[in-house]
Amino acid sequence: METLTVGLLGCGTVGSGVVRLLREHGDDIAARLGARLVLGPVAVRDPGKHRDVDLPLVTDDPRKVVADPDVDIVVEVLGGLEPARSLVLEALEAGKHVVTANKVVMANAGPELAAAARAGGARLEYEAAVAGGVPVIKPMRESLAGDRVRKVLGILNGTTNYILTRMTDDGLPFPAALAEAQRLGYAEADPTADVEGHDAAAKAAILASIAFDARVTPADVHTEGIARITPTDIAHARRMGFVVKLLAIAEEDGGEVTVRVHPALVPHEHPLANVRDAYNAVFVTGDAAGSLMFYGRGAGSLPTASAVVGDVVTVARALLAGERARSRPASEVHTMPAPTLPVRRVRPFETTSVQSYVLLDVVDAPGVLASVAATFGEHAVSIRTVWQEGAGETAQLLLITHAAREGDVRATLADLRALDTVRAVASVIRVEGAEV
Amino acid sequence: METLTVGLLGCGTVGSGVVRLLREHGDDIAARLGARLVLGPVAVRDPGKHRDVDLPLVTDDPRKVVADPDVDIVVEVLGGLEPARSLVLEALEAGKHVVTANKVVMANAGPELAAAARAGGARLEYEAAVAGGVPVIKPMRESLAGDRVRKVLGILNGTTNYILTRMTDDGLPFPAALAEAQRLGYAEADPTADVEGHDAAAKAAILASIAFDARVTPADVHTEGIARITPTDIAHARRMGFVVKLLAIAEEDGGEVTVRVHPALVPHEHPLANVRDAYNAVFVTGDAAGSLMFYGRGAGSLPTASAVVGDVVTVARALLAGERARSRPASEVHTMPAPTLPVRRVRPFETTSVQSYVLLDVVDAPGVLASVAATFGEHAVSIRTVWQEGAGETAQLLLITHAAREGDVRATLADLRALDTVRAVASVIRVEGAEV
Repeated sequence: METLTVGLLGCGTVGSGVVRLLREHGDDIAARLGARLVLGPVAVRDPGKHRDVDLPLVTDDPRKVVADPDVDIVVEVLGGLEPARSLVLEALEAGKHVVTANKVVMANAGPELAAAARAGGARLEYEAAVAGGVPVIKPMRESLAGDRVRKVLGILNGTTNYILTRMTDDGLPFPAALAEAQRLGYAEADPTADVEGHDAAAKAAILASIAFDARVTPADVHTEGIARITPTDIAHARRMGFVVKLLAIAEEDGGEVTVRVHPALVPHEHPLANVRDAYNAVFVTGDAAGSLMFYGRGAGSLPTASAVVGDVVTVARALLAGERARSRPASEVHTMPAPTLPVRRVRPFETTSVQSYVLLDVVDAPGVLASVAATFGEHAVSIRTVWQEGAGETAQLLLITHAAREGDVRATLADLRALDTVRAVASVIRVEGAEV
Repeated sequence: METLTVGLLGCGTVGSGVVRLLREHGDDIAARLGARLVLGPVAVRDPGKHRDVDLPLVTDDPRKVVADPDVDIVVEVLGGLEPARSLVLEALEAGKHVVTANKVVMANAGPELAAAARAGGARLEYEAAVAGGVPVIKPMRESLAGDRVRKVLGILNGTTNYILTRMTDDGLPFPAALAEAQRLGYAEADPTADVEGHDAAAKAAILASIAFDARVTPADVHTEGIARITPTDIAHARRMGFVVKLLAIAEEDGGEVTVRVHPALVPHEHPLANVRDAYNAVFVTGDAAGSLMFYGRGAGSLPTASAVVGDVVTVARALLAGERARSRPASEVHTMPAPTLPVRRVRPFETTSVQSYVLLDVVDAPGVLASVAATFGEHAVSIRTVWQEGAGETAQLLLITHAAREGDVRATLADLRALDTVRAVASVIRVEGAEV
């Protein structure tokens, strides 16, 4: 039986999962593929370190893996921008097929790498870069290739979803829920990238690029984290039929695209509301397909490795079919925006239309509601629901708006802060999925 | 720009959706693909009939479409076994790529057609045959190609899911919910194929074949419908934290496979419990990936057409990459079980282990529970929950078992019917997803 050699860049959590799957499922894969996948050289930082998995050939020089003429497929699971980006680029330029799980590389250098893949006649697959073990990249690129995507809503970060689930179920404040997530290994010692939304923003940039044939980088993504969400917000949300989720949102409007990551109130009956704990999900709305959702484990050694090895099999099939030798790669639709597609403008968040939940600490006096309502009215922000809570020192006014321009909502908030009757704007959280 | 011609067999609900998408999304598809998809000849039963869509070239002889040398890709949306099966076979034998939305053809003749595709060097794609617009075939064949699937749970029939949702939400009995579904166009005048589970069984056979590299036909699928489900069952289920769903279940156990379609109690917190109305969903458990779910519209003109056109784009890419000319098709993993894979035995339902909900009409007298419990015990069926309801003429005993051999449960039921204390076995419904 023919063999194909897989070279591995990195052997941490995901890499060791890849090694395990190539071994343990090797016979099944060989039967499905008609060829055997063999693990070739593995580049690691410290070749002397003890590992749970046996590695046939270890090097501390990743360039040796990329340059090895026996390596048919390069798998990059180093994480971070460099040296991962340069190594992937080198491999593609040499016409080597690459599978990567690296969201940072794909979000920041996707179009550049896609161009190198096209030029080199190579394939670049990256299913594991978004939502770990959940197939979402390939379904969006392939199954929806004849459709027109209008909106993508994603729960793309398991750490924050776990924290919000604990806050919702057990009434924990954010710091306690974060501490529990850290204790259980769901959150890192430095949780910034997760809780501030940066991890989700990189994945949102990748999804938006695919969904809308746009060039979206993390810098284009308006990003807010969950650190300011309080048990009070969650309790209010629940009473009104919502749960709080950190959402990645990409939508198309008049040929332009907006991409943002922020906490949002999601109606109880929305499929995303039931995505709990460390699970991920991507909810896609297509013109023809309607509403679709992809759900599963967004992280972890084996789930992520499953997506990586799925990509390796895809690439191996292409190799066996002689795709490397062809003059015109079939990968145009596979890679990030094809050069023939118009570049779409990424629109600033201020000009996007959103619903908002606003919680105000107010003076408990007659005329408060009138002055607050008038302020919303002045900025043409229309109110859907009002709820008054408490009295005296604890009087609160809770409002949900209809969809309104984000910029107008911000101007409203600035004016509300200046009112004598408003002691503070306690919370502002957007509402998503309520008008679907 | 290069063009590829799509020949269409059938122009009913799905076919006219395909024509619309090829037209309305034609420019987007061309930009993504680097080639233009052109609608060629369309075979219809009555060429004189008025249609909402304009067709360039109509014939009442489908063989003309298959034999047309200008047709690059044949799309089969006729439905039913013949002449669809023969036409697909002819096309594949002639080396023509085929996209079909036909569950009956794929469930009954999948392996035969896959062999013809391999022999002809052609591709056979059938994403729309299961769960309409939801990408599930390709994710299972490709993204999970490096994993090992253990179990598949699917809500694969929108009609019955709509009926069960109405029965659950509004307390309607089955005939009233069916009548409403018929009035709204969710159920056909003759609803047999849907309500008796035959439609779901064909789709279950296809999914099981892919998931377990097995040869499963609809005849291998133990099939029960929903006509006997009562509002009482649904109310009891709800009280115990379950909803009633018609599930397609395929699982692997010791190298063998069981496939079945029947109503089942699903715990409220299971992702499938929230799949409402006419939506479909497939919940897959893989060794490495863990739990995955794919959710969306399982039927309808445009959702199904979206999946068909997605397949057409996939096939077009392969064509443009010169895949037709290659000596060794890459389609082994794409098609139904590869010839190199061991054939797995499909095990009869009687030998499968399941949890059951059993509702008994009992005599309201001392010792009833003891005699019932003893009967379960004699067959080694262990009881998880018991609930006594009503008194006198309406006394009922409601039991949920632990997982037990289906054959043992049936033997228990036969013995229960013979007890003086048991007036009738009112309902038996299996329980799924509770021990995950």
